[in-house]
Amino acid sequence: MSEPVIEPQRRRIKEMKILVLNCGSSSLKYQLIDMDNESVLAKGLCERIGIDGSKLTHKPTGKDEYVVEKPMKDHQVAVELVMDALQDAEHGVIQSTDEISAIGHRVLHGGTVYSDSIVVNDDVKRVIREFFDLGPLHNPANLIGIEASEAAMPGKKNVAVFDTAFGMSMPEKAYMYAIPTEYYEKYSIRRYGFHGTSHKFVSGEAIKFGGLDPENAKVIVCHLGNGASISASIGGKCVDTSMGLTPLEGLIMGTRSGDVDPAVVQFICNHENKDVNEVLNILNKKSGILGMSGGVSSDFRDVEKAGKEGNHLAEVALEAFRYRVIKYIGAYVAVMNGVDAIAFTAGVGENDIQARKLICDALGYLGVKIDDEANNVRGKETVISTADSKVKVMLIPTNEELAIARETLALVK
Amino acid sequence: MSEPVIEPQRRRIKEMKILVLNCGSSSLKYQLIDMDNESVLAKGLCERIGIDGSKLTHKPTGKDEYVVEKPMKDHQVAVELVMDALQDAEHGVIQSTDEISAIGHRVLHGGTVYSDSIVVNDDVKRVIREFFDLGPLHNPANLIGIEASEAAMPGKKNVAVFDTAFGMSMPEKAYMYAIPTEYYEKYSIRRYGFHGTSHKFVSGEAIKFGGLDPENAKVIVCHLGNGASISASIGGKCVDTSMGLTPLEGLIMGTRSGDVDPAVVQFICNHENKDVNEVLNILNKKSGILGMSGGVSSDFRDVEKAGKEGNHLAEVALEAFRYRVIKYIGAYVAVMNGVDAIAFTAGVGENDIQARKLICDALGYLGVKIDDEANNVRGKETVISTADSKVKVMLIPTNEELAIARETLALVK
Repeated sequence: MSEPVIEPQRRRIKEMKILVLNCGSSSLKYQLIDMDNESVLAKGLCERIGIDGSKLTHKPTGKDEYVVEKPMKDHQVAVELVMDALQDAEHGVIQSTDEISAIGHRVLHGGTVYSDSIVVNDDVKRVIREFFDLGPLHNPANLIGIEASEAAMPGKKNVAVFDTAFGMSMPEKAYMYAIPTEYYEKYSIRRYGFHGTSHKFVSGEAIKFGGLDPENAKVIVCHLGNGASISASIGGKCVDTSMGLTPLEGLIMGTRSGDVDPAVVQFICNHENKDVNEVLNILNKKSGILGMSGGVSSDFRDVEKAGKEGNHLAEVALEAFRYRVIKYIGAYVAVMNGVDAIAFTAGVGENDIQARKLICDALGYLGVKIDDEANNVRGKETVISTADSKVKVMLIPTNEELAIARETLALVK
Repeated sequence: MSEPVIEPQRRRIKEMKILVLNCGSSSLKYQLIDMDNESVLAKGLCERIGIDGSKLTHKPTGKDEYVVEKPMKDHQVAVELVMDALQDAEHGVIQSTDEISAIGHRVLHGGTVYSDSIVVNDDVKRVIREFFDLGPLHNPANLIGIEASEAAMPGKKNVAVFDTAFGMSMPEKAYMYAIPTEYYEKYSIRRYGFHGTSHKFVSGEAIKFGGLDPENAKVIVCHLGNGASISASIGGKCVDTSMGLTPLEGLIMGTRSGDVDPAVVQFICNHENKDVNEVLNILNKKSGILGMSGGVSSDFRDVEKAGKEGNHLAEVALEAFRYRVIKYIGAYVAVMNGVDAIAFTAGVGENDIQARKLICDALGYLGVKIDDEANNVRGKETVISTADSKVKVMLIPTNEELAIARETLALVK
């Protein structure tokens, strides 16, 4: 009599495995997540797709890392190698792709169309293609990943989880640039915001973990990593966010400038005899704390070390980074006319104890008080403010893959 | 016995007349101010200098306007015509230029050199010339004005009052952009801030009028006009301001975009096949509320009218304008960790009762409370917050000419 009881249970487990794919132009990151307990069964990375020296690094949980060096002429081959690795007799974690119930894809840009995740069909693919212009590096790779996944696992549902979806709830006053309206009409130039999957996940977790009112909580999420952005949301709906048309705007990042007078672009073009694409490349790849520190590093830890060793530029770079975060927190408190919680996440937000402390010390006017002992923590959900702090300050680790898997599950179950 | 008493008195009055000149590329604005009582004796404007149809409009206080249509081949001729008008038997206000004790010049850009006004000598002229690159439209005209004034009134002191001087007290974390340091070293690319003369004047007046601590008062000045900027100062020293390398950055203005993702410049260049100078021209001259409203007007009153008549774009433009002001106020409160006073000035700030009201209503979290009756005022020094408001909110009319005259007097008396 045990069979009928175990069978549905086993089938339910099988159906709850979600594969998460994140395709770049020559890379593919994946995680297979068991949604019954939200545990990672395996994760890995294909590098140098379409280039000499392609490599798959597969990490099954609790087993040894497994490296496959095989040519991958395209993402199709890469997806097939991932399927093989997942089912490998020795290094695999499933017996058959039947166990995978759906595939969730990180897609950079849903343009003005998608304010939520969606099961992929021809319309969705058409929209992803329509917005190649706005996500020229990512959207083509994301679409290739979806099509490779459809070919490798026919009949399974693919879900597109857009990095821009969270920002779609912003009001016009927050997303419209003050430029001629024809550019919005012709090209959909507006603020979109990125890291949306992370901001949505972290603001949601902050509301749960902080015991806040899910309908009305005013939450600021500081996603501080090599890419950095900040969002303001009320009841889980984004009202503003710092990245704009592209991920360049906003905070100072590892290599991105964040906000600058747009006339700086013109000035450098004219005085260095460069074209606008070269200058934008500098603002995206050679600026941020890398550029400000005089080239020390794009890694916050290296720049901090240099600062401590007396490098003045490095010190200024980190001060300016924190200063910009403080400015945005202040701005977002104002646009919400108050704040209930501030959550720190991503590499720097989760690990840089001193940065959190220095940022929060500047917010005394809001009644923010940090508990130094509680703040002495890394990468773990923690309330780091004191009991009498007027604003709850938290460390909430982000988990974009889990967020994508949850979105996917919600649409296919 | 009355002679010896009257004579020094008359001489003192004579010595206290300051001429203020503000030269544009083809224009010259002037005011002659009696500093004994800070009254304007005459003011006027030369237009179309170096162009066909030059015209001087002279307005002596208490007398009829006087228009002179004569060719002005350069600023030298314009200054001479101004001298004539000031001494004209019928329309003049002085008998001789001997009565002018000094000339104060508005100069746009003092680069990184001048953090205060200064009596002009060869060094000062050299610096103004060195920073032609950073003020390509204004600095050359300002220098021409100084030299024309030296030629027309030899022996008199000329004082340069820099629009960038106020911003020189900003800390590095506020003025350094997160771009490669070589651009700061080679070209002095940094945040300068403009409207400095106005911000300094208004923050000073706000401290006096509001009875604030002159050493420690935290003041935010919202200079809201066709050009718009906002500053934060502590004890009268600027700590941050919204305009940057050029007056383009920051708030939404009549025709300027203010902040945009720098990638917007690239996107429009590439998709409209324009070069960077054309796009920057659009951001400077065809954007702001003019561009956002779909071309209604760069005048806030026209856009407000259109909005009230149901033009949605016009409504969004004004909402976005106020929203940006609210963001900056919030940001500056955060960087100062509090605020004692907020002062509104310039065309919109002094006259738009509703804009002040709507902006302040968003600041309830700071304990800001507006007294609607007190706020029902235009162009007059007024405290518009309630007695129990935690932040003093004021309307403080700006007066750049008087500010320049005061700076000039302080250096020559």
